Amino acid sequence: MKNQFISVLLVAALSLSFARAEAKSDNFSTEQLNQVEQLKQQALKSDLAWNLVESLTTEVGPRMPGTPGDKAGVAWAVKKLNALGFDKVWTEPATFPRWIRYSESAAVISPAPQKLHITAFGNSISTPKAGIQAQVIEFETLAELENAPIDAANGKIVFINYRMNRDRDGNGYGPAVQARRRGAVVAAQKGAVGYVMRSVSTAHHRFAHTGGSSYKEGVTKIVSSAISNADADQLHRLLALGEPVTININVQAKSMGEGTSYNVIGEFTGSEFPEEYVLIAGHLDSWDLGTGALDNGAGVAITMAAAKLAAKNTPKRSIRVVLFAAEEFGLWGAKAYVKKHKNSLSNIVAAAESDFGADKIWGFESNVHASALPVARDIAAMMQSLNVEYVGRNEARGGPDLIPFRPFNIPAFELAQDGTDYFDYHHTADDTLDKIDPEKLRQNVATYAVFSYMAANAKTRMNGKKITNN
Amino acid sequence: MKNQFISVLLVAALSLSFARAEAKSDNFSTEQLNQVEQLKQQALKSDLAWNLVESLTTEVGPRMPGTPGDKAGVAWAVKKLNALGFDKVWTEPATFPRWIRYSESAAVISPAPQKLHITAFGNSISTPKAGIQAQVIEFETLAELENAPIDAANGKIVFINYRMNRDRDGNGYGPAVQARRRGAVVAAQKGAVGYVMRSVSTAHHRFAHTGGSSYKEGVTKIVSSAISNADADQLHRLLALGEPVTININVQAKSMGEGTSYNVIGEFTGSEFPEEYVLIAGHLDSWDLGTGALDNGAGVAITMAAAKLAAKNTPKRSIRVVLFAAEEFGLWGAKAYVKKHKNSLSNIVAAAESDFGADKIWGFESNVHASALPVARDIAAMMQSLNVEYVGRNEARGGPDLIPFRPFNIPAFELAQDGTDYFDYHHTADDTLDKIDPEKLRQNVATYAVFSYMAANAKTRMNGKKITNN
Repeated sequence: MKNQFISVLLVAALSLSFARAEAKSDNFSTEQLNQVEQLKQQALKSDLAWNLVESLTTEVGPRMPGTPGDKAGVAWAVKKLNALGFDKVWTEPATFPRWIRYSESAAVISPAPQKLHITAFGNSISTPKAGIQAQVIEFETLAELENAPIDAANGKIVFINYRMNRDRDGNGYGPAVQARRRGAVVAAQKGAVGYVMRSVSTAHHRFAHTGGSSYKEGVTKIVSSAISNADADQLHRLLALGEPVTININVQAKSMGEGTSYNVIGEFTGSEFPEEYVLIAGHLDSWDLGTGALDNGAGVAITMAAAKLAAKNTPKRSIRVVLFAAEEFGLWGAKAYVKKHKNSLSNIVAAAESDFGADKIWGFESNVHASALPVARDIAAMMQSLNVEYVGRNEARGGPDLIPFRPFNIPAFELAQDGTDYFDYHHTADDTLDKIDPEKLRQNVATYAVFSYMAANAKTRMNGKKITNN
Repeated sequence: MKNQFISVLLVAALSLSFARAEAKSDNFSTEQLNQVEQLKQQALKSDLAWNLVESLTTEVGPRMPGTPGDKAGVAWAVKKLNALGFDKVWTEPATFPRWIRYSESAAVISPAPQKLHITAFGNSISTPKAGIQAQVIEFETLAELENAPIDAANGKIVFINYRMNRDRDGNGYGPAVQARRRGAVVAAQKGAVGYVMRSVSTAHHRFAHTGGSSYKEGVTKIVSSAISNADADQLHRLLALGEPVTININVQAKSMGEGTSYNVIGEFTGSEFPEEYVLIAGHLDSWDLGTGALDNGAGVAITMAAAKLAAKNTPKRSIRVVLFAAEEFGLWGAKAYVKKHKNSLSNIVAAAESDFGADKIWGFESNVHASALPVARDIAAMMQSLNVEYVGRNEARGGPDLIPFRPFNIPAFELAQDGTDYFDYHHTADDTLDKIDPEKLRQNVATYAVFSYMAANAKTRMNGKKITNN
């Protein structure tokens, strides 16, 4: 018992000395750094983000742009931001091309009749009511299809069987996703009547992964879809038997013209520089298959909870949570935001988007003017006890919704999440609340809270690489 | 290099001494025990079982009793047993009540419209074409429903939300499965118009688990179904909000009268006592949702491969592989086998069924006459190097298809598999080939090969607890 007591004292003393070691800065007062310490502890005990993502995924559910669920999501966000005491809560419209999925199914017709688990990509056309039925031709990669003769797939259904790599940072996504975005175009150019690919996925489960896709003017539109990894393996094995393999794909979907949704914005207003603001973002929409827990209910909840925690003592600059609309259909909310605010984007002193699930943050990277690097380092130092590494490249890209902001040279940050398992669930029916670990979620919120507080309260504001005004 | 060489020698010497230590027995000659050692090594290198289960699940796919897939499975088994050189290959008919699933879907109607992942249980009636729509009432267990007032569920859909325990030996299944087998009967007795339960499952994925169910004469038949665990969590959370929750269940299925399928039997004939035989079994049928890889393509492949390996040097007694029909609909193939062979079941010198996936065997248990225990112990001793424990209770129950054999007092054995993950996939669309680990499968085959060889070649035959003849 006595030994235990001494141990406790030692740990306490060590913790204190670490806290003190961190607590030296030209950019922050000791009082501020103590507040950051308290903030971390509060965040690590807070269930706020969990309660938010539970509420959003349960009481609203799927939120595909242009659906009743999307509308309910906007109403939910406005209500919750108000209930949390944000100083200002408002919406801004964003338009996008609507698309609706009615039904989808597929089956091997011969040689061994069996169902395939398939999903259409967003924007896919329908097949005829009876589906399309044709022989399958397999390609290992999109490049292999691109290099094939112009009539290589004449009258066939093209199947690209590229396997995505599992990776902490999601680096496998880029090489895999091209076949989703434009595989149907290349397949049609080679004479194909339908297009199906192995899901952009690292999963060992029988869920097909949806996602955005597009057509090209002048190229025949053909159905664009993915089967689960298990089904892709099966199709590959059937083809390897050497006999023709015929499948049927039946997708009923519809493009519905222009739709409107809303970015939902909540702001805690700064006391000294209210027009300057930290922007933390997620996107409110989701695909229709799951309840959008990881993508991106988590990001919504993390940023809302972090802002609430960080703004407990009124910050010098504003902290603005932007929940973007219609990200999944092509960053439409982010584009609308940039368009509307293009003359005041230099008011953003720091921006980060949470759109990579709900696992722990492992790294922190900036993309700022050299003069802002000491502040970035101070923020990183305060994240150290949360097991967050400082990534010193200063080339953070931010989340997908920050892409439209890039030309405007804002100070962007990456709170790098562990995405090892993210693509097991991404864009599937299996993206549900049970995939979120409440403890990891708390660590994630803590880093966003530290980031928001410190960026809002630094002695001098941070700027993008080229200082454009201010 | 020299040190390495000495290590190799040491390991070799130790292995030999272990092999010698095992190699003392009154029931087996040293030559036989050496053959068992070789057999193990061959089995641990053999891809035969993998190739068989790959072929069955790919070239045939789902094999629900009475479907074209079932018929194709029977043809596949006859062809493969012949190709493997079994001395006799034949089929025996088994009849069963046919049932077909056409479609199934469900959705929360209010308060938060969203799809539910549902599956009907075998034997379930259809709903009307538009489905049934009613308020949900939740019970934690079947017992809670049984104890509820007679009108507790009047006009409602009963939802039982019992959570199955994960367990190496599958002990969580028994308590969970009662709600599947007769939940709809009890729900109807309490006035319910529909029945849905949390899947009998340990999974964290959004697959509903099907399985057998029954109705009771005099009790109104209502639709009988399960939702995935993720959906059960969601429904529970929606109900916890305190407002009425209305769902729609739409199942289209049909009972089709009597069907016929076939037990497929392959035998390597014994040289000394051909009428006496070791029976190793799996079931050839599967549910319709997946390709029946774990349940029970694995068992089919394991027993076929083990017999082939064990019979390399002609055994004294016969080794018979029985691939039972229509197990999933109620052990119909096993019942037919017992009925047909009831006067010669005492010819069975040892019986084991593989019907618990494809993981490693961890234990070996007998259920035999005391005079046969030394042989059982010798078999267990030869399995030790495969990391198989001897379970000394002598109360092995065997697999499900051995249940109809129990009254006939046959020498039954349990080659106990690790089933920790089995109920993640059992009876779902996710039961596909990729869930089988080829290395674990080899260990599994090795134990069945050792078992088959030794039971067939023991000096004296083994008998059941009561010696009935011989």
